[in-house]
Amino acid sequence: MSSPLPPLDSSFPNSRKLSTSELDVPAREISLTNGEKLTVYDSTGPQGLDPRDGLPKRRADWIAERETRGDTNFSQMHYARRGIITEEMKFVAIRENVNPEFVRDEIASGRAIIPANRKHPEIEPMIIGRNFLVKINANIGNSAVLSSIEEEVEKLQWAIRWGADTVMDLSTGKDIHETREWILRNSPVPIGTVPIYQALEKVDGIAENLTLDLFLETLEEQAEQGVDYFTIHAGVLLRYVPMTAKRVTGIVSRGGSIMAKWCLAHHKENFLYEGFGEICELMKRYDVSFSLGDGLRPGCIADANDEAQFAELETLGELTKIAWQHDLQVMIEGPGHVPMHKIKENMTEQLEKCHEAPFYTLGPLTTDIAPGYDHLTSAIGAAMIGSYGTAMLCYVTPKEHLGLPNREDVKQGVIAYKIAAHAADLAKGHPGAQDRDDALSRARFEFRWEDQFNLSLDPDTAREYHDETLPQDAAKSAHFCSMCGPKFCSMKITEEVREYAAKHGVDNQDAVRQGMAEKSAEFRERGQEIYGTQEA
Amino acid sequence: MSSPLPPLDSSFPNSRKLSTSELDVPAREISLTNGEKLTVYDSTGPQGLDPRDGLPKRRADWIAERETRGDTNFSQMHYARRGIITEEMKFVAIRENVNPEFVRDEIASGRAIIPANRKHPEIEPMIIGRNFLVKINANIGNSAVLSSIEEEVEKLQWAIRWGADTVMDLSTGKDIHETREWILRNSPVPIGTVPIYQALEKVDGIAENLTLDLFLETLEEQAEQGVDYFTIHAGVLLRYVPMTAKRVTGIVSRGGSIMAKWCLAHHKENFLYEGFGEICELMKRYDVSFSLGDGLRPGCIADANDEAQFAELETLGELTKIAWQHDLQVMIEGPGHVPMHKIKENMTEQLEKCHEAPFYTLGPLTTDIAPGYDHLTSAIGAAMIGSYGTAMLCYVTPKEHLGLPNREDVKQGVIAYKIAAHAADLAKGHPGAQDRDDALSRARFEFRWEDQFNLSLDPDTAREYHDETLPQDAAKSAHFCSMCGPKFCSMKITEEVREYAAKHGVDNQDAVRQGMAEKSAEFRERGQEIYGTQEA
Repeated sequence: MSSPLPPLDSSFPNSRKLSTSELDVPAREISLTNGEKLTVYDSTGPQGLDPRDGLPKRRADWIAERETRGDTNFSQMHYARRGIITEEMKFVAIRENVNPEFVRDEIASGRAIIPANRKHPEIEPMIIGRNFLVKINANIGNSAVLSSIEEEVEKLQWAIRWGADTVMDLSTGKDIHETREWILRNSPVPIGTVPIYQALEKVDGIAENLTLDLFLETLEEQAEQGVDYFTIHAGVLLRYVPMTAKRVTGIVSRGGSIMAKWCLAHHKENFLYEGFGEICELMKRYDVSFSLGDGLRPGCIADANDEAQFAELETLGELTKIAWQHDLQVMIEGPGHVPMHKIKENMTEQLEKCHEAPFYTLGPLTTDIAPGYDHLTSAIGAAMIGSYGTAMLCYVTPKEHLGLPNREDVKQGVIAYKIAAHAADLAKGHPGAQDRDDALSRARFEFRWEDQFNLSLDPDTAREYHDETLPQDAAKSAHFCSMCGPKFCSMKITEEVREYAAKHGVDNQDAVRQGMAEKSAEFRERGQEIYGTQEA
Repeated sequence: MSSPLPPLDSSFPNSRKLSTSELDVPAREISLTNGEKLTVYDSTGPQGLDPRDGLPKRRADWIAERETRGDTNFSQMHYARRGIITEEMKFVAIRENVNPEFVRDEIASGRAIIPANRKHPEIEPMIIGRNFLVKINANIGNSAVLSSIEEEVEKLQWAIRWGADTVMDLSTGKDIHETREWILRNSPVPIGTVPIYQALEKVDGIAENLTLDLFLETLEEQAEQGVDYFTIHAGVLLRYVPMTAKRVTGIVSRGGSIMAKWCLAHHKENFLYEGFGEICELMKRYDVSFSLGDGLRPGCIADANDEAQFAELETLGELTKIAWQHDLQVMIEGPGHVPMHKIKENMTEQLEKCHEAPFYTLGPLTTDIAPGYDHLTSAIGAAMIGSYGTAMLCYVTPKEHLGLPNREDVKQGVIAYKIAAHAADLAKGHPGAQDRDDALSRARFEFRWEDQFNLSLDPDTAREYHDETLPQDAAKSAHFCSMCGPKFCSMKITEEVREYAAKHGVDNQDAVRQGMAEKSAEFRERGQEIYGTQEA
């Protein structure tokens, strides 16, 4: 696990990081062997710094100005609703190649969020909303004593190298505060947490002993450190809990089950719901975004789209409106395990019940029968729900349900989700999304092997697979590959087709068609004559 | 590559092969630790035989009777249309748990096929049609000199172990005839080929020198050996070829480009189209099924659903009708590379233009940017098109576009496609499909780790992943896992929820709901009062 990370340019050969505009917006430019260049979205952040120093605080001046003039609500939505286009909005507008005013309007309406705690000045702002590129989240940090802090920072760097847009730190171990500090000071992407995990540590794992005050204290601690969004399970209401009794897998969300236990033990309403206003007051002082947790999400195909799930969703919609009254940014978490034919209903219900707040789904997994491959069972569902409008997809690794992901698992999960997100961008017709597909396909067609590798999501792996069969350097300029061999190649035929088309004229093909249509009609007639009598 | 295959029971612990009815229909029974059993579809075939002896000829008597009485058209469709329910139809009816008369009717109408050359008596009959379980195909055999014959047989056995329902032998090397013979004699699943590859070998790779006679001679050779279905690119018409000139990746099908080259060279119509009647006459003497090839399928996202592709599809529909006049079984091959939003149109067009003949698609790949992961880019598309009605999905391995798949790649491809096919079965509401998901989810919920592994598509991998974090045997009976650790577990909470529900009565929950609804209304009122003035 602990070999050092390879340098960025070994992962992405022939690429260089760009910094555009005075806002220093990152991008990655891939240089091709034919002289062309392609620029792609880049989440990798500054490279080669000592983790003990942390990243440069690029937003420090922007935030200082707001503090100096005495602002008390630092939410991007608060500024957007007053007609102010913040630096963060300008930044994401450049990053997404859209108009800043469009960004402001999406934020003001609640259709998109920019998670950006003012105490996390290191981030390169990014936007989550269904009218922007589909984003992905990777989870790191875990219960095990196994991980050192350095390893957690490396996990973060590894996840963003392959394209994670946000990272959730789900640590529950002893050094939870210090681990989070290291992660935040080294993260160019927004960091999310589930604060109830730490709150539970503070009461030695006894859910019944949780209180709103203790929770608020935990929120304050994490907000001060710079956490950008909090998963809060305020929609697990006492009356919804019995709805899960007849499920195949009951309650599978940790946060959800903690709150369910609390509700049952006290026979009282969820204190996160009761204290939601106080939580809002706290969060707006930092601009921490809500990620309203789906504590009652289904944990298997059999439980998908049930009464408990949709009841909670309705409450999340109610809470969204309250958060918006505070100008707080909100996204809504979604399932889980859902068979393909029930996926669309999730999106439709979420848009309606939660007033178009961005949807942030885990998968969904489209079958339960493939532990060890749940990055794949869920990438199918993720691509689909992404194409229907989900704004961010929470990755699933091959270790889901089985164990803790190692470095390779994190990479597999992130790549699977980059594929799902990009497939969804194509399906939504996102402007420019297809440029990379087209560039890679042209490289493929023209046997520019190096370009094909370098344009891919994972150049290392593509090159390695190619070289297993044809390791020689010469093979990378050869006009054939190991699939058909040098003797016959379909790509070469197309060259001849083009010559033919040029000679006979593609625009003149109507003539060819005409001639052949006659022949075809004649053939069909003959066919009828010969075999017509045999029809059953 | 060449270590011997592990025995079947090491791949599937606690399973035993069943043989049901006097027809000896295979199935696999998984025994669970709680005494329950689950029976699953089984494609693994007889085990432990010497490949030099081949498999038992289980269909020999059925076929002998038909030969004795002087039949000349051995097609299952021919029998079905005369109202005869063959042994093959009874066999698949048991295998799919449906009525034999339903099978006969689906075959008679052309909506399903049972590929079963009378010269391939070793097969365990299987059915391909959208009203049955979604099937998958794995390709083996390749151009390289690398593979020995023994290795090709092992590849076959490996592919069917993980669930391939049919296998295509795409060998183009020197020992093509002998390789095929070994594969057929050892294959319990239908074998498909692309005969034009061998025909091309016979004319030293010079496409222009191909003739109908040479092709028919090749078909006869392969049909005599027992090939169950032929991919034939009879829809690549001369007038369609120029339509591909402006494509990003032109013609990517090998068979398609061979025929395009022939058409251009002679400026004549495709001899497979012209000679289609003769081809039919030959094939019905064996009951070889047509897999009408999509020689003009798109090779990249940019070329999806274009004029060339749909023009060819229309011709495939025309040829389907001619084949049906001969009572020949037909399926239609489909793309390829298609973005998600263009997938459904493929299915709709295919059903309409090809009169509901079964669709057999390659993927489709939903993006071009992930070479090295195309089993995944395509599993997304495969699951979707399967849910829309595609009857068989041709697998794609991680080596697609890059090199030749090794044993591990074949497994990865097959598992990815079993996931896609099963997700599609769930989405279609196929009766009983969800039983395995539910059994596995119950095992998961009850911490029956061994059952969870053994019910999965790949028990080895699931167990290995689990043991990486918790290798001790004791952990497999522990009521926790490495994700949350022993201290807190959401599954345990659900136990408490159930007790609560039992005590308060789930059916009596209306009372709880009533009480809480009042509280909630009160809360909302308070919320409005406190924050109502801030709404934008």
